[in-house]
Amino acid sequence: MLRRFKNKWEILRQKVYIIIYGANTFAGKLFDLVLLAVILLSVVLVMLESIESFDMKHHFSLKVFEWIITVFFTIEYVLRILCNKKPLKYIFSFYGIIDFISILPMYLSFFIVDAQVLTVIRAIRLLRLFGILNLVPYIGQESHLKLAIKASRTKIIVFVYFVLVVSIILGALMYVIEGKENGFTSIPKSIYWCIVTLTTVGYGDIAPQTLQGQMIASLIMILGYGIIAVPTGIVTAEFSNIKRNRIDARKRRNCTACTTTIYDEDANYCYNCGQKLNDVFKK
Amino acid sequence: MLRRFKNKWEILRQKVYIIIYGANTFAGKLFDLVLLAVILLSVVLVMLESIESFDMKHHFSLKVFEWIITVFFTIEYVLRILCNKKPLKYIFSFYGIIDFISILPMYLSFFIVDAQVLTVIRAIRLLRLFGILNLVPYIGQESHLKLAIKASRTKIIVFVYFVLVVSIILGALMYVIEGKENGFTSIPKSIYWCIVTLTTVGYGDIAPQTLQGQMIASLIMILGYGIIAVPTGIVTAEFSNIKRNRIDARKRRNCTACTTTIYDEDANYCYNCGQKLNDVFKK
Amino acid sequence: MLRRFKNKWEILRQKVYIIIYGANTFAGKLFDLVLLAVILLSVVLVMLESIESFDMKHHFSLKVFEWIITVFFTIEYVLRILCNKKPLKYIFSFYGIIDFISILPMYLSFFIVDAQVLTVIRAIRLLRLFGILNLVPYIGQESHLKLAIKASRTKIIVFVYFVLVVSIILGALMYVIEGKENGFTSIPKSIYWCIVTLTTVGYGDIAPQTLQGQMIASLIMILGYGIIAVPTGIVTAEFSNIKRNRIDARKRRNCTACTTTIYDEDANYCYNCGQKLNDVFKK
Amino acid sequence: MLRRFKNKWEILRQKVYIIIYGANTFAGKLFDLVLLAVILLSVVLVMLESIESFDMKHHFSLKVFEWIITVFFTIEYVLRILCNKKPLKYIFSFYGIIDFISILPMYLSFFIVDAQVLTVIRAIRLLRLFGILNLVPYIGQESHLKLAIKASRTKIIVFVYFVLVVSIILGALMYVIEGKENGFTSIPKSIYWCIVTLTTVGYGDIAPQTLQGQMIASLIMILGYGIIAVPTGIVTAEFSNIKRNRIDARKRRNCTACTTTIYDEDANYCYNCGQKLNDVFKK
Repeated sequence: MLRRFKNKWEILRQKVYIIIYGANTFAGKLFDLVLLAVILLSVVLVMLESIESFDMKHHFSLKVFEWIITVFFTIEYVLRILCNKKPLKYIFSFYGIIDFISILPMYLSFFIVDAQVLTVIRAIRLLRLFGILNLVPYIGQESHLKLAIKASRTKIIVFVYFVLVVSIILGALMYVIEGKENGFTSIPKSIYWCIVTLTTVGYGDIAPQTLQGQMIASLIMILGYGIIAVPTGIVTAEFSNIKRNRIDARKRRNCTACTTTIYDEDANYCYNCGQKLNDVFKK
Repeated sequence: MLRRFKNKWEILRQKVYIIIYGANTFAGKLFDLVLLAVILLSVVLVMLESIESFDMKHHFSLKVFEWIITVFFTIEYVLRILCNKKPLKYIFSFYGIIDFISILPMYLSFFIVDAQVLTVIRAIRLLRLFGILNLVPYIGQESHLKLAIKASRTKIIVFVYFVLVVSIILGALMYVIEGKENGFTSIPKSIYWCIVTLTTVGYGDIAPQTLQGQMIASLIMILGYGIIAVPTGIVTAEFSNIKRNRIDARKRRNCTACTTTIYDEDANYCYNCGQKLNDVFKK
Repeated sequence: MLRRFKNKWEILRQKVYIIIYGANTFAGKLFDLVLLAVILLSVVLVMLESIESFDMKHHFSLKVFEWIITVFFTIEYVLRILCNKKPLKYIFSFYGIIDFISILPMYLSFFIVDAQVLTVIRAIRLLRLFGILNLVPYIGQESHLKLAIKASRTKIIVFVYFVLVVSIILGALMYVIEGKENGFTSIPKSIYWCIVTLTTVGYGDIAPQTLQGQMIASLIMILGYGIIAVPTGIVTAEFSNIKRNRIDARKRRNCTACTTTIYDEDANYCYNCGQKLNDVFKK
Repeated sequence: MLRRFKNKWEILRQKVYIIIYGANTFAGKLFDLVLLAVILLSVVLVMLESIESFDMKHHFSLKVFEWIITVFFTIEYVLRILCNKKPLKYIFSFYGIIDFISILPMYLSFFIVDAQVLTVIRAIRLLRLFGILNLVPYIGQESHLKLAIKASRTKIIVFVYFVLVVSIILGALMYVIEGKENGFTSIPKSIYWCIVTLTTVGYGDIAPQTLQGQMIASLIMILGYGIIAVPTGIVTAEFSNIKRNRIDARKRRNCTACTTTIYDEDANYCYNCGQKLNDVFKK
């Protein structure tokens, strides 16, 4: 009898697994959509709660919704562990940790008063939407981007490192020139100002007041103007390169007789063995 | 007699149709230019009216002009419906709805006091200028842009979605770090700040005050600096690609004797069979 | 005797002409350098004069220098007219008008009190530096830029027009949403804010305060983020295109026997007549 | 005996030289890592010292650490001179001067009170990290960037000069239009504002208040929007160009029999003479 129960349990486990982890069955799709809605709802809830005037008026209903979502997420988390053959792999995966952390704060709020503020961590669950919304399968798109970023990774790291070193040096310089009385109260703050300026964000909460400071700031801005061209140039060149290679690859075909690769899309005969080529390319 | 009247009416309808919808006759061009002027004038009027000091001085004349334009637009709207064979198609088209909405506020202002503020909707009529100024026929230009945007649409949507998710996560983080006392009064406001920073706009109405906040802000800025390269890279690569394909296509021709494709635009003889090529390319 | 005088005058005129307009003789180069120095000095003077604290202290010496420069510019202007064969052409040329306007304010200051402020017009004389510093002869560089801008002119005009229309529509919208109490005091100011935001400048002198306003502002920023890619894409594509064509042109050579253009830089024999090609390209 | 001492000294000198200047031995690597840590520590120290609240609390320990680092740097500097065969070359090299200046302030602080502020110069020592972190050997990456910047140097200088001239002219214009009462207190400040606007930094510490000023500012912004495309276009075009040339060069090989250049990287036989090609390309 235990065996039969075990069998039943195994069948149930597999069914739940297909619903939760799969997306090909109707139930699986439905679960994904419900999860999508609940994640979005939970993020909206956290947002609304942070608006003081709204929280005052609807504190009780917000709390109720909060608990409903927490219970839903808890059930989902437990089911994900139970129905998985390798539960530890899930628990210590990126999503497993996020799922766990996003249900934790509500339970902690029994013991620690301010724990609820941590519910904002749930926002990270939004990353699951990339999977649910089928944005990953757009691999053609994704991989383009990923390939371009991967190819230009080292260059971008060197670039970011360069920006940081320049910011530290120029930040220290501005600290000496402008001084504490003009808002450059410390070197870290000066470096922060320098990054704000180099990236052309320009809050204006700190701004040079002396003529020398403004002259150096102008130089930094023009430098930043030139620097912005570098990552754009790198990524664009990689993009174009990947694109061109793709196109080249698409135009290739093989001779049916000698399997030579033919690059010329208008060729009628194999340049190697004279075999008549069939016209595969629409023109 | 009714029939003759009907005939006359039909002829009149067609004449008006050609004037209003066409642009090939002198009357049609004149109508377009007058419409262009009146739309521009109406937008300028709405602008002037919104400047309090100007409105106080010239309230009466502004009102008179406002009514003249409204009557002109009303007549135009009625004529557009009357002379159109398929009036319903026009009425429920994008421009039809805009045309209707832009005359509505003045009539509504009899019943509702604040309705006049809605006259700003007229600004949307400016889109008609693209048609009037013959910017659409520059299809060579337009389609380049449109093709590039169309080809990179999915990538840009994925990109915008990514920016939004990153903004929500980082916005929530900054809300926890900086807190209500430093201007990050709610998570939506924090997200708004994050978008302001990521896009390098940087108003400075909200700015991080704590050291940790400024460090994370610096990271967000450098991230934004890198992120800005992505849409630029995508669009540029598509542009270059479209351009290259156009050029390649334009340079191709086939030998009249052996149908070999000739890529060399300066070739006088087919490199395959020696056939004299006719000179299609102006150089 | 009059004739001899005339002859002498003619010789003098030509000598002065060569000094002022030419740059190949030593005197001509010296004149250019002196003019360069005086123009820079005059701009620095105007700047210093505008700094109140500096002007108070050194008012007299500034005035003296101002007059010395004005006299120098006046002599230069008179000489330019006298030694030119077609004085009217110079007088009504762009530089002629600028040269005249830049000496006018000091003489006008006898009659009108505030005329001196117009000396800032002298800054436009800085454009002469492009000529003096031999930046124009870098035609290889110049024309690259000019060709790229020329080729993308229509596209950029359409683009700027599009940005303006979008700014008017969104500016009007923000005026309605935010209203006078939040700094959007009139539609022109709203449009100004919209351009400030779309171009990612973001002063922050006007910033949305309501939640709806901030949401629309976020959309405008992301739109601006995408829009910035368009001019960059256009210019880059044109640049690459011009560059590629140049390279292609450089790689071309003609067969010495049949004058066929050879594109293949590694070709040893003419593909048309079998003539041995000489190896012009260093590899 | 002197000779033996000299010999010993020479061996010691060489050993120290290998440790300090080399990076291939274990000791050399260790030295580099320690130096890296100490430089980073010294920069962090200078930063902490500039934060007033932190400096108050830990003034004594900061001073102690400061001296330890200064002594370490002094020993390093002396060793670098002693073990170098051409000490003068090191002393007057860029790094030699920086190394000297970065130890100077602490010793000067005995005589001059404010000398310690100059310790910020140490930040420049961070440039050594490029060498230590092996970022220079990534020459493939470096040279790409360097080649692109080198190739577009003249264009970028002309561009920066153009931006400066435009800023001076427009800055002077805005000074006249807005005037001292709206924050444009002098022409240099106006020029500073113009650069802040053109580079899309936009602090907002100075912002146009009058309608005319805001209109011209809008034009400047749209101009800046277009101008930003130019350096990006230049750098990207150079990048793509370098990349393309590299790829083309990498894919080329010559037939061993007839020396025809083979561009097709997948070809097995020479398309000209049928010679078997050796497979040089990993695929």
